[in-house]
Amino acid sequence: MYTVSVRDHFMIAHSFSGEAFGPAQRLHGATYVVDLEFRRTDVDADGMVVDIGRATEALRTVLAGLNYRNLDEEPEFKGRNTTTEFLARAVFDRMVAVIGRGDLGAAARGVESLRVTLHESHVAAASFEGPVRL
Amino acid sequence: MYTVSVRDHFMIAHSFSGEAFGPAQRLHGATYVVDLEFRRTDVDADGMVVDIGRATEALRTVLAGLNYRNLDEEPEFKGRNTTTEFLARAVFDRMVAVIGRGDLGAAARGVESLRVTLHESHVAAASFEGPVRL
Amino acid sequence: MYTVSVRDHFMIAHSFSGEAFGPAQRLHGATYVVDLEFRRTDVDADGMVVDIGRATEALRTVLAGLNYRNLDEEPEFKGRNTTTEFLARAVFDRMVAVIGRGDLGAAARGVESLRVTLHESHVAAASFEGPVRL
Amino acid sequence: MYTVSVRDHFMIAHSFSGEAFGPAQRLHGATYVVDLEFRRTDVDADGMVVDIGRATEALRTVLAGLNYRNLDEEPEFKGRNTTTEFLARAVFDRMVAVIGRGDLGAAARGVESLRVTLHESHVAAASFEGPVRL
Amino acid sequence: MYTVSVRDHFMIAHSFSGEAFGPAQRLHGATYVVDLEFRRTDVDADGMVVDIGRATEALRTVLAGLNYRNLDEEPEFKGRNTTTEFLARAVFDRMVAVIGRGDLGAAARGVESLRVTLHESHVAAASFEGPVRL
Amino acid sequence: MYTVSVRDHFMIAHSFSGEAFGPAQRLHGATYVVDLEFRRTDVDADGMVVDIGRATEALRTVLAGLNYRNLDEEPEFKGRNTTTEFLARAVFDRMVAVIGRGDLGAAARGVESLRVTLHESHVAAASFEGPVRL
Repeated sequence: MYTVSVRDHFMIAHSFSGEAFGPAQRLHGATYVVDLEFRRTDVDADGMVVDIGRATEALRTVLAGLNYRNLDEEPEFKGRNTTTEFLARAVFDRMVAVIGRGDLGAAARGVESLRVTLHESHVAAASFEGPVRL
Repeated sequence: MYTVSVRDHFMIAHSFSGEAFGPAQRLHGATYVVDLEFRRTDVDADGMVVDIGRATEALRTVLAGLNYRNLDEEPEFKGRNTTTEFLARAVFDRMVAVIGRGDLGAAARGVESLRVTLHESHVAAASFEGPVRL
Repeated sequence: MYTVSVRDHFMIAHSFSGEAFGPAQRLHGATYVVDLEFRRTDVDADGMVVDIGRATEALRTVLAGLNYRNLDEEPEFKGRNTTTEFLARAVFDRMVAVIGRGDLGAAARGVESLRVTLHESHVAAASFEGPVRL
Repeated sequence: MYTVSVRDHFMIAHSFSGEAFGPAQRLHGATYVVDLEFRRTDVDADGMVVDIGRATEALRTVLAGLNYRNLDEEPEFKGRNTTTEFLARAVFDRMVAVIGRGDLGAAARGVESLRVTLHESHVAAASFEGPVRL
Repeated sequence: MYTVSVRDHFMIAHSFSGEAFGPAQRLHGATYVVDLEFRRTDVDADGMVVDIGRATEALRTVLAGLNYRNLDEEPEFKGRNTTTEFLARAVFDRMVAVIGRGDLGAAARGVESLRVTLHESHVAAASFEGPVRL
Repeated sequence: MYTVSVRDHFMIAHSFSGEAFGPAQRLHGATYVVDLEFRRTDVDADGMVVDIGRATEALRTVLAGLNYRNLDEEPEFKGRNTTTEFLARAVFDRMVAVIGRGDLGAAARGVESLRVTLHESHVAAASFEGPVRL
């Protein structure tokens, strides 16, 4: 199994609902450093899992849709707790759509699964991984 | 599959038995930086794998039982080589017990597997992973 | 010259005023990973620059005053752009006050200068350093 | 499942063939920081996955066969794009051969799988993982 | 004293002349992860040392002039050993020119000194620092 | 001012005397990841601050004199608290002696100052820096 991973980040404000969240119920924020991993059994004709340059651009584009925002005001996330786990899944879903639209090139449609990890600090992270169903 | 991970560290003295260990047969020590990963297929009702704050506290509590000790003197480890692999397993077992006692909350009982990684330096690490059987 | 440094983090929401800030004029947020360095020409009678345990606690206490907050609503920062540079200075000033009050112990009054670095992502940081005037 | 990992690096020149590679078609180079993971279900009689000291030496020996070279001139890689993915596989294959020859000791023949990760920068990496078939 | 730092990287091929360089006399290459620090006594009217977004772009532009190249073929470096130290100085000189041309904005002309660090691996780095003389 | 830095590590056992040290009065241990920085105003005839290969070997040799030891039993440290600060100074003194003996080559005698940083965990470090007086 081959994997290629690229890293970028985004910065948002949000708050959480529910006693379990303690002081994080207040409006605060986070920098998420994102590791996006692409996996496939074999490389493509160019010897790649996915083009690292295009993968980097695709990740930047996906994160631009979240960056410098107050997630409490985003219609898409209304009524949801935008936990690190939840956001890892949101980035995963958007990246699968990017691959499906062919934005990473035809060869990238051979990617079998993705793992998205969001580091919220030097001591905590969350990720979501799953198959790419196009 | 969702994962949440938290990081902490502990500092111990120990020595190893067996020629394979070379100079590490002498009494020496280590800082272990610990990454504890919790995994489950789906998040709980609050949108979490496990509460990061409680997970951090639980890890601190588990590591406090090892921290600032000479492991050669710990009855529990008598006659054992406390290799990094072995200690990763020891932390794993203790954390499963913590989840079983409900110390991470009822929802955390939905955690399906754990991975514990101990970094002994900037160039070496060991881990143990397995299912959580409560 | 001796230095001791400790690390912790805090998570806030804020927005900036001024065209120079582009999309960061919107309400967003950040995780700041903080490195706090204490410097002095010679160590104290115990062979320390400052007690690492007490320094860690003091940093946690100072950061707790900023953590999980919307800085736009903090009276102290009213009308100010809470840039990473600005916040590095704010943490510096609060830590000097902690040393002055003796919260780090009498010996810590021998600390001559501090440097506070805030990492806002894996690719950007800011710091403020200066003498400790008690 | 137990894992032990060790880290080292190598520095090479190379160029790529194919429009997909853009400016990387020019002769350039890279530092690859390599993480080599050994996995097995259970530890050996000494409580180890593999001896970390011997694993470190074995990795250094394998990387010495690639280090300080222009890969475009290496007969073994003639006509191949030595992408990060491709090189991760090359290191994997060489390490399996090392284990097969017994250079890591008899106990190391119990290693079941390897994962080799090459970090080409602070923001990009590739890996290859698979079973060890001796 | 305030500091702002940004990080990026570039990938080159080169070789060295002189017995002191051992195997590095062969054509090989490196990834350099670059930390660029801007320093000044006081922040500007916007509360900044330098705009982090513009600093990031300026660093990318400067590194693009070196990236994906064989430095042995660059007329500017003819007959020079492009050691990590030497390249840190080259990036420094180019960044001073960028500030002098006003590409970082008028306020950035208040930057008093720069430090450029090139990490050539996880275990070695070099830097050059000096005053900005416009 | 030019700087070159190299990294290695060592692993020791020790204990501390004095109430200030709390649980660290018990026999425990640490991994110290060491960053050794060499500084000089100008590079030598080969374009180097110091040969990175020889610097790496010299650091390994110095750390081998401390590695895998119980510092409480080392005659040289009898009656001293081997704090991280103290050990940073000890590595500094030994490295100055190495340079003085010419073990880093004649050119390395142009090194003007050193900084030695010991990272005892992912959240704490200490360093000592000073001029090289031969």
